[in-house]
Order: sequence, then structure tokens, then C-alpha cells
Amino acid sequence: MNSFGQKLKFSTFGESHGTALGCILDGVPAGLKIDEEYIQSELDRRKPGKSEFETARKEADKVEILSGVFEGLSTGTPIAMVIYNTNQKSKDYSNIKDVFRPGHADFTYFHKYGIRDYRGGGRSSARETAARVAAGAIAKLMLNNLDISIFSGISAVGEVVSESYDYESAKNSIIYSLDPHAESAQKDVILKAKNEHDSVGGVARVLIKGAPIGLGQPLYYKLDGVLADAMMGINAVKAVEIGDGVLSASVLGSQNNDEIRSNGFESNHAGGILGGISNGEDIVMNVYFKPTPSIFKEQHTVNTQNEELDFALKGRHDPCVAIRGTVVCESMAALVIADMLLLNMGSNMDGLQRYYK
Amino acid sequence: MNSFGQKLKFSTFGESHGTALGCILDGVPAGLKIDEEYIQSELDRRKPGKSEFETARKEADKVEILSGVFEGLSTGTPIAMVIYNTNQKSKDYSNIKDVFRPGHADFTYFHKYGIRDYRGGGRSSARETAARVAAGAIAKLMLNNLDISIFSGISAVGEVVSESYDYESAKNSIIYSLDPHAESAQKDVILKAKNEHDSVGGVARVLIKGAPIGLGQPLYYKLDGVLADAMMGINAVKAVEIGDGVLSASVLGSQNNDEIRSNGFESNHAGGILGGISNGEDIVMNVYFKPTPSIFKEQHTVNTQNEELDFALKGRHDPCVAIRGTVVCESMAALVIADMLLLNMGSNMDGLQRYYK
Amino acid sequence: MNSFGQKLKFSTFGESHGTALGCILDGVPAGLKIDEEYIQSELDRRKPGKSEFETARKEADKVEILSGVFEGLSTGTPIAMVIYNTNQKSKDYSNIKDVFRPGHADFTYFHKYGIRDYRGGGRSSARETAARVAAGAIAKLMLNNLDISIFSGISAVGEVVSESYDYESAKNSIIYSLDPHAESAQKDVILKAKNEHDSVGGVARVLIKGAPIGLGQPLYYKLDGVLADAMMGINAVKAVEIGDGVLSASVLGSQNNDEIRSNGFESNHAGGILGGISNGEDIVMNVYFKPTPSIFKEQHTVNTQNEELDFALKGRHDPCVAIRGTVVCESMAALVIADMLLLNMGSNMDGLQRYYK
Amino acid sequence: MNSFGQKLKFSTFGESHGTALGCILDGVPAGLKIDEEYIQSELDRRKPGKSEFETARKEADKVEILSGVFEGLSTGTPIAMVIYNTNQKSKDYSNIKDVFRPGHADFTYFHKYGIRDYRGGGRSSARETAARVAAGAIAKLMLNNLDISIFSGISAVGEVVSESYDYESAKNSIIYSLDPHAESAQKDVILKAKNEHDSVGGVARVLIKGAPIGLGQPLYYKLDGVLADAMMGINAVKAVEIGDGVLSASVLGSQNNDEIRSNGFESNHAGGILGGISNGEDIVMNVYFKPTPSIFKEQHTVNTQNEELDFALKGRHDPCVAIRGTVVCESMAALVIADMLLLNMGSNMDGLQRYYK
Repeated sequence: MNSFGQKLKFSTFGESHGTALGCILDGVPAGLKIDEEYIQSELDRRKPGKSEFETARKEADKVEILSGVFEGLSTGTPIAMVIYNTNQKSKDYSNIKDVFRPGHADFTYFHKYGIRDYRGGGRSSARETAARVAAGAIAKLMLNNLDISIFSGISAVGEVVSESYDYESAKNSIIYSLDPHAESAQKDVILKAKNEHDSVGGVARVLIKGAPIGLGQPLYYKLDGVLADAMMGINAVKAVEIGDGVLSASVLGSQNNDEIRSNGFESNHAGGILGGISNGEDIVMNVYFKPTPSIFKEQHTVNTQNEELDFALKGRHDPCVAIRGTVVCESMAALVIADMLLLNMGSNMDGLQRYYK
Repeated sequence: MNSFGQKLKFSTFGESHGTALGCILDGVPAGLKIDEEYIQSELDRRKPGKSEFETARKEADKVEILSGVFEGLSTGTPIAMVIYNTNQKSKDYSNIKDVFRPGHADFTYFHKYGIRDYRGGGRSSARETAARVAAGAIAKLMLNNLDISIFSGISAVGEVVSESYDYESAKNSIIYSLDPHAESAQKDVILKAKNEHDSVGGVARVLIKGAPIGLGQPLYYKLDGVLADAMMGINAVKAVEIGDGVLSASVLGSQNNDEIRSNGFESNHAGGILGGISNGEDIVMNVYFKPTPSIFKEQHTVNTQNEELDFALKGRHDPCVAIRGTVVCESMAALVIADMLLLNMGSNMDGLQRYYK
Repeated sequence: MNSFGQKLKFSTFGESHGTALGCILDGVPAGLKIDEEYIQSELDRRKPGKSEFETARKEADKVEILSGVFEGLSTGTPIAMVIYNTNQKSKDYSNIKDVFRPGHADFTYFHKYGIRDYRGGGRSSARETAARVAAGAIAKLMLNNLDISIFSGISAVGEVVSESYDYESAKNSIIYSLDPHAESAQKDVILKAKNEHDSVGGVARVLIKGAPIGLGQPLYYKLDGVLADAMMGINAVKAVEIGDGVLSASVLGSQNNDEIRSNGFESNHAGGILGGISNGEDIVMNVYFKPTPSIFKEQHTVNTQNEELDFALKGRHDPCVAIRGTVVCESMAALVIADMLLLNMGSNMDGLQRYYK
Repeated sequence: MNSFGQKLKFSTFGESHGTALGCILDGVPAGLKIDEEYIQSELDRRKPGKSEFETARKEADKVEILSGVFEGLSTGTPIAMVIYNTNQKSKDYSNIKDVFRPGHADFTYFHKYGIRDYRGGGRSSARETAARVAAGAIAKLMLNNLDISIFSGISAVGEVVSESYDYESAKNSIIYSLDPHAESAQKDVILKAKNEHDSVGGVARVLIKGAPIGLGQPLYYKLDGVLADAMMGINAVKAVEIGDGVLSASVLGSQNNDEIRSNGFESNHAGGILGGISNGEDIVMNVYFKPTPSIFKEQHTVNTQNEELDFALKGRHDPCVAIRGTVVCESMAALVIADMLLLNMGSNMDGLQRYYK
């Protein structure tokens, strides 16, 4: 239950303030050049503490490969990666040890398991997503070999919506904003929330370019279904839409259908997926993040004895988790697409015979 | 890839116009009273042709149980159910045999498999959802034993949004509308689209009451992630949100957090799920359906030779698939919750020891 | 838990004396010619009542395809097959209703599930293997396209061991004996046991020719491990060996190693599998079947109230289940090899790039 | 494909001479006391270099827990364990770099993946089984809580068979021999093979005491089938038998059936499993290991260019892998039983309702 994917499967481990976190990535085809610097660079994009728009927690997030790579190439065996936690020991957790922080998983973990690693949320902390980014980086290396690219950026912070989607610009934006004209206002919203000891929600947009027609295994491992699971499973995500998504529910069929010409589709309301299978167009998603539940205002809550108290959290937290969440969305998308590429092999006898003869 | 669930797993088969469709439901605990009339009554809620708001195709959707039930009780072995297609033979498909209908999966199935059952969309037809409803009915019988109930209804048709959610009223509404005051306008939108040879989108809302705290297996079989997969995988669904969903991305943490008192949560912005685990509150989802892609207006498309043509579909189609989709959402939700109940057993040593000693 | 395989997965349903049994075979590549007569001919090899060496129960075992095949070709969607039981209604089961037959699964099913379909063993009856043979026939059609063949036969009945392995001869032997010189003595052993109201064990041998190098997914979906599971899971099987198997545990490394020359291996003690992966040589297995537990001698047993009684079974039973078991072994082997062929695709980047470019 | 188990699942990583090996054990119920000394003691039983009957390679096999344990208790989250290789760097592999060692997986890995970590066999080395033992130790801690115990020992070395099974004696035997009277002769066989630069096969016997009735998920996750997979998947294993196994194929039903009395079965030919489900008796298996393929005699082989050569291996190797293999068999058995305990929960509605009400 801590694994994701079918043929390309990753399994993660680790808690926010434990010894280490990491993952095993299983199913990487042999012979892939494993560029460790690239993997680290992806982790660096996600790592905390890069600006005032992020948590102040400092983690090097230095990744080490323990297996599965020999002389720079994948061997077809599991690639284990580990990231030791370096900034986890100093804190005193006695104030939150027995308290359920509103909006956090403290309450549900405690009741499910009867025990809870209260240090920084333990397993439920978004810190675990570092392992996803490490795995996703290798998936991206696979995709690069097939000219498939994944992009992401922030399409909204609070009520400030990006009007344009400039993925190159997003790469250079400290908040990964897709709209250079909205970036400044989006930053203001974040800082305002932060200064008021509050947090704010946001939306990540993901674009997948170059995916071949045919990815997705109907009917219960559809491309859109699995992407929805992958995105909804990221910490703080509360909604996922493919293509026009929510909008498509309010329009007419004649407005929503993408008509077809010999050189492709005339529009892309579908977001690149028909019947759960990629259609060769850009795959587009929006991923909605709730505001960070960690706020510094006083809130009603209870403790493990179900005694009521008022509680104001202390500590270091992202004022808008969607920002660093964009990198995680990209990583999960890369893992899904790479898995689907492998699963799609053998969909028909022609392919099978070509492969073996 | 045609199976869903981990401990309670169903596998479906069948095409729109093949001999039969059905499913195997595996993992039902032994000793459950299998009420066949109830299963049929659930299928009747989904079956087509009940009103002018639905397709005119007539199917009895009579379900037959082939295995797994003995003397009225489940035996713990797979329950196979079959529904023979009765209204599939009369039609002439020569006009769509080689044509990709815009908005349909024709294009992607053909390219993935190199062959396509063009009769009514074959496997990609929403007709397959009858098998989900049959399986879901048994899941609901399981849930009833634990006082868990699932409700659904239409919260929007096109731009006409339900302002209130009356699930009892929805049961008696021919379009399953949640808002008696909006129902008439919603009907008008459907009929207008139908009369103009068009179709319209809609939104289904699902409510799960009585689920215990602790359902959901973090981190990659989370309750919200699996529900998102289950809902997104239903034909025509383009977006899924849990609790406040999309809205939560535009507000502040202090607005979105659900504060806690000794008798429960003070609000339910989270929609009953925290950290991928149920928190004991109502579980709430919105599921966004695109308009039926089958419209009778002329559209641009290509054929299997990639030759361009203009094409107007004929036949019988739902003007708003969200309507009958509500029952399918319920069924999928029931299957997810039942699966999670089984998976949650053994989460801690106390439970294990209680079970075996 | 009633499914087998990863990419080619079959799920079975049905009880010995229920309405029907059958399976869904999921993952068959599209475009495979589905020869229904061949599938039926495979079922005919397994079906009971063909001679005095088998049970007298008469079943037509007529298979019907419900889905997944269009115009004679697989479509890539699930192939459902059903076999209605025709000879299940006449019998009175009151004498075994509450009694646990020694050597049967009655005892364990009752205690696990708290309820038991006592008609002919219900789900635990070897009758379910008809569904495996139907699925296996389609797997064989796949393998034929890649020039992979599967053979089987009886290598021992009781203490009468086949000294030679003539698979062509086995096809024409009514007891599938691999050794024409031993066949007569093997028949005598069976009839003697039958006449004494007893039964006798036997050994099936399976040969797979033409499997390419590279099948098997280490380390926990190894070819030998999965074959062992597949064979041990067949009713009445108590031991499985690959290649020299048991013998290899008593010899020296210099005797057991297969030395290698440029045109292949000099011997095949390994039975075609090294490190869980096929090495291009013949894959060879022996599968050990216990005697049919259904005997007509009086035996000690208890009933569901745990009251002791002496009990002599009545009815129709195979005196040596290994005979018809050979066909089931072949079928399971075919399903495993076909699954492994699909899984092996994408083991290295060369194959991935060749497939997609 | 490097994972094993359904509800209790472990995934391993690592190569013989890579940086580290280890595993993630997922699904351990929360609240289990994790005794690290016990885990280390289990690894110590398997670790190489303890006597002249084993390889001279020295490895501390020091295990470190990276996650999933908090204040001495499991938290329900994945338990990652790592063992760094300490004795892997000194060797020169140039002599075997391009050569396929007979009896090893070199040939098959190279052809499957197109690349091979030739250092000590890489992933195909039995060194990986250390990770299984670490995971198995935690499974045993789980089983201890339910009074289930697992024992093992050597029942044969070459042709010297143990006539009695004394599991307590085996614990204290340097070769884990089950028969104090045969031990000396068994040692002689090993040393003779070693001195002649050869190796010898052997048989491990496994006993599981205290397993409740009902473990095993028919029909395709049967207890015996999964045990067969688990055992056959251990390096060098070529045959597996349950209970009387091979012998049962040569006897009569009246000899093989275990008759039943009110206080249990009168015999245990079945080895504790009926219809794939535990029957409450001792579960007994024999696991047949081929001789170590690494021998120091000259053998025919080819290199990666398919050029023939004669080759004599150098290095440090176990003369009889079955010895240390016994511990691995135990560990795998423990993991299977623990998984089956978790899977069995929810087999019937009584259990489900008891759990949730």
C-alpha cells in the first residue's frame, strides 16, 4: 500500500523526522543512462528553504543510489535511493505530541493505527514526496529517450489566476508561476497569508507533450483514472481535472467535442485522453491544492484523550504548498506515463510478434 | 486491467452489442445474505429507456448469478453475474464502421489495438457500467450490515446548479435532481439540448454516511486517491473533487481547516478525508461529467484511412449522461468503501490479536 | 484471490454443481485468431467420462465465448467464457452435507468460511479446472504464433514409472502415458485401485519447447517460482520439480552444472531455467498428484458438529486424478509462459525504443 | 517484480557487490514491538563465514532500520532496512567479466537485460537473501504474538538423509542438521566435496507449528501454491514438496488420506494443508537445493561473444548452499504465514462485524 505503478513500480519509505526516507524503483528497463546530477537537480527544485515563499526548514535532500545502477547504466534490477534527514533532531515536539492539528492527518493516523509518529507529521508529512521526485526523475530520463516531456507551473494562488501558461517562464519563477503578469500578485497573496499567520491554496497545472497514442489500459487502469489517483494522492490535493474538466460539465456536446482532421484534433477540450487512452494531443491537468493546514492562528482542537483545547501551531511551514507541489505533480505524471508505456507493449499481436521475431 | 479493488475485487467483461456483459466479484465475505431483488432494483435505477431524459435503447438488464451464492448466502467464493444483451442485433453499423466519432474512444481504441468492435462503441460504451452496478449492489449489501449508506444525486445540469442537496428527493426525481427547486430548469436544459440534436454536461454528487474512522491505506491506496480513480474511470467523467475541492484552492488555511471538538469536527471542508484516511465525518464528492459525445449535428472527423469527412451521428443516446451516471458513482463508491473496510482489518496488532484469539 | 497472472490474467468462477463455471481472460493481445473449435478440443481432452480410467460423470463441457472476440479476432478486451453445468442436479447430497470427507477441502472451507457448498465439493472441486483449460487454450493459440509448444503426459502411476518420454505417443494414449511399454502396467494399477474401491497417485510431466531466452521476472516473479505456484495450485498436487529437481539435491556440482558450448548447453539438468529465467533449452517439470481422496472404503471422520463417525463415500470419481490433470498442467504452463512473454517486453531500453520508434 | 506478498509485502533491492542491500516491509500492523537484536540474531544465523562449511566471505551483515519504527514499536508504515556491503571492493572481476559461469544466472541475465553486473553475480547472488531474513525476522515477531513458530533444518546432504527430525538439535548444529546421528556423515560429504573443488546438494525441511485453521486464499493464492513459489524462488532450489509430497504420488488413497477424529487428524500426510488452506496440523515442507554452481573444476563455457572457453572459477563459495538456505526457507515461510493471517481477516461476515462493531 506504499507502492505505486504496475510495471514501473515505486515503493517509498520514511517519515518527516526519521532517520531517512527513500524509495525502490522497480521495473526500469536495463541500459538507461542514470544521470545522478539530473536526479539531484530535480530534488533541488522541490527542496525546502529556497525562498521566503517556502518553509524555512533546511534540508540538503542529497540523494544516494544504493542499487540497480552499474557503470552508469540501469541494470533492470531495483533502483534503491535514500535521502538521509539532516535537520530533524533539534526540535521539541512535546507541545504537539498529544494534540491533533486541525486539517492534518494526526487524527486519522492515530485512530487507524493506535500509535502515531508525531514528529512533524511522521509518514503523513509532505516530506515523503522527495522520494517521489527522485523516482520521477528517473522516469523522466526514460521519457526523454522517447521525446516525451513534462512541464508544470502554478496556474492560480488563492483567487489570483494565471491567464496564460508559459511553462518556460514558470521554470524561472521562484513560485513557478505560469503567468509573468500574474506572478507579482500571486507572490503578494502568499506573503500576505504568511504575514497573517495563515496559508493559502493554489492550483498546479501539468502538461505532457509527446506521449504516443495508445497509453492507458482500459477499463480500470485508464490513463485519466490513474493520473487522478496519482494527483489526488499528493498531500493537500482536493480536486483533479483533465482537460476542460469542471468546465466541461456545464457546456454542450457540440462545444466540448474535439473534431478531427487528418493532421489531428481541431481542439483539445479532452486534455489528450479519450476513453482512458491518450490520443496523441497534449495531456493537460489541473491539480487543486488546499491551503497548508499548518497555520499559526489559534484553533479549536482535541488531544488524544479527546479533551478540548485551543491551540496555535509553531514551526516552519510552506505558506502555499501548491508551489513546491508542482514538482511533485510532474514527477507523479512522469511515473504514470512511463508505467503506461511499458504496459502498452503487447497490446496487439503485431507488436508481440515484432518484438520476439 | 479490467479489474478494480484489492481485497474486494471485481472484474468486468462485455461489449455494448456483444452476447453478454457481466462481472466476477471476488472477496465478498462468506455469509452475506444476497438479495437478488435488490441487485435487480439497483440495475433498474441505471437501466436505459426509463424516460425522455435518457436514451431510447431498451434493455431489460436482467442479471443472473452464476456462482458464489448457496442457499441465499455468499460462500466466500467468486460471485459471477451475467447480463445478456437483448437489444443488440437489429442495427446496421456500416455507416460508423470506419469512422471515428468525435469525443468517443473510437480513435484511441483503434490505434491502440489495431482492431475495434465498432458496434455501439464496443467495450468503451457506458453499457459496461451495468456490471459495476451489479457488483456495487452487493457491496452495498455488505455496507448495510455495518450501517454505512451511500447516496447520490444530480447537483448540476449544464449551468443550472442545485442549491440544496436533498438525497431523498433525488431518489424520486426522474433526473435524480438534488434540488426540487432546480429540477424543472434542469429538465428544460436537457430537453433543449436534445431537441437541438445536442447534449449537455452535468455533475453528480455522492455522499457516504457512517463510514468508520480509519478507511484508506496510505500512501498509495489512499481513500481519496482511489475514489478519484474510481470516479474518473467512469465514462465521460473529466473532474473529481473531494469535499470543498476546487474551492479549497482559492481560500485561506484558516477558512479551510476543520476545527475539532470532542464530539467531532466543527465543519467538513475536507469531505470526510484527512491524509487519505476517513475521519468519521460524511464523505462527499462531486463528479463532473462531460456532455454525451454522441450528438446528431454534423461534425468534422476522419475514417480509419485518415480521410476527412463530415459526419452526423444517428441512433439513441442519453442527452445527459450524468443522470444515469449518478447510480454508477454510487456503485463505485460502495465498492471502494467495502474494499477499504476489508483492507483496514489488521492495521494494528490489537485488531489482529482480537481476531485470532 | 481467484485470479492468476500479471499481464495475462485469468479469473475463474464456479462450483462443481452450481449453475455454471467459467473465466475471464484479460490481457490477450488484440488480433489473435480465436479458434473456438480448438478451445473446445482442449476441453474435450480434459472432460470426464471418456473411459473406465476416469469418473463416470458426464459433462459436455461446452464452452461459450461471451465477449472479447469480434469477427473471429481478439479485440484486446476481456474474453469471458462460460460452461454451464448440465449434470449437476440429480444427486442427493444429504449424506455428505454435514460430513468432512477425509483428504478433501470440506474441513478447511467450512472452518474458514463458516459455510460450505457441499455439492460435490463446491468451489474446491477439480471441476473448476475446466475454466483453466479454456483459458489455457487461448494462451496456446498465442504461443503457437511464436512457435512455442507445450506437451505433457503421465510419467508415473503409483509405482509404475515411465522409462521414456514419448509425447506424441501420450497424445494417443487413453491415460496419456509417456511410455508405451509402461502404459499397460499403469492401466492395471489404476483398474486395480478402482476395483478395490481405492485410488492411486501419479506424476504428470510437462515439456515446453521453443520458449525464448529471457522469460521470468526476478526476483519474486521468477519463471520457476511461478510455475511452482501454478502447478502446486492444481487440485491434488503435492510436489513440483524443475529439471532434475529432487535428484539435484543429492549430487555434486560437477554432475549437476550444465556446461555451455557456442550452440547451447551440453545438458539440461536445470530444466531450462537459470536464476528464474528461461535459458532457451527445453523447460521440463514433474508434477506429483496424490491419489484421489474420494475412495469408497470406510474411513474415520467427523461431522460439522465434530461428532465422530465412520463413513464410506458413494459417487463417481477419477481413480487417478493425475491422468486428466496432465491437461490442466499444460494449460497452466501455457498461461504462465504467455504471461511471461508479455511481462518480458520492455526489459531493456533497446526493446522499448524499438517498439515505440 | 521484486516484491512478494499481498497484505504483508516486502520489496528487496541490492546486489552482491553493490553499495548496500535491503528491503521495505510494508503492511506490518502498528504496535508490534520491534526487537532489533532479534532481527540481527536472525541475520547472524544466515551470515557467511561462520565455519569451514560455508563461504569464507566475511560480512558483518549489520542491519539498520531507516523507517517505520517509533519508540520501539511499528507504526503501520513501511519498515525500511538496509545492510551495507563491507567486503565487496577488493576483488578483481576481470576474469569473469565476460564469461558465463555454468549453472549460474549470468547467461540468462545477460540475454534478458543486455547488461550484467558481473561482480559476484550481481542481483542474482544469494547475498540478496539477507534482506529476506531481515524481513522474515519481523514476520516471526508477528507470529510469536499469535503463538505460531517456525523451525527448519537440514534433512539431507547429498545422499546422506536425516532419519529423524530434531529441530532443537538443528539449532545447535553448525550445519543445522536435523539428525544428530547423521550429522557427522553429512559434514564429511560437504568437506569431501569442498576438498575436491566441488559442491554438493542438500534438502531443507521446514516445520510451522500453531498456524490456525483457515490460512490460504483459494484458488490462486493457496497456501501451498504460495509456499511453493516462495521456496522455489530461493536461489538454487529445484523442487518443493508439501507433506508426503513426492511419495504421495506413488501410494493409494487409503494410504494417503488423513482420517479425522474429534481431536484432530489421525495422520499428517497432507502436511497441514487441504485444498490450499491450513487445517490446523503442523505444516511441513521439504525444499531441495541443487549443489552450488560455483565449483573450482574446469568447465566448458562461452563468453559474451559466444566464444568457447574452458574455465575454472576462483573465489569463496559455500560448498553446500542448503545449509544457510534453511534460514532463508524459514524466513520466507514466516512471511507467507504472516501475509496469510492478514489476508484471512474478513473471510466471513461474522469476522467483519466483530471487527467493526
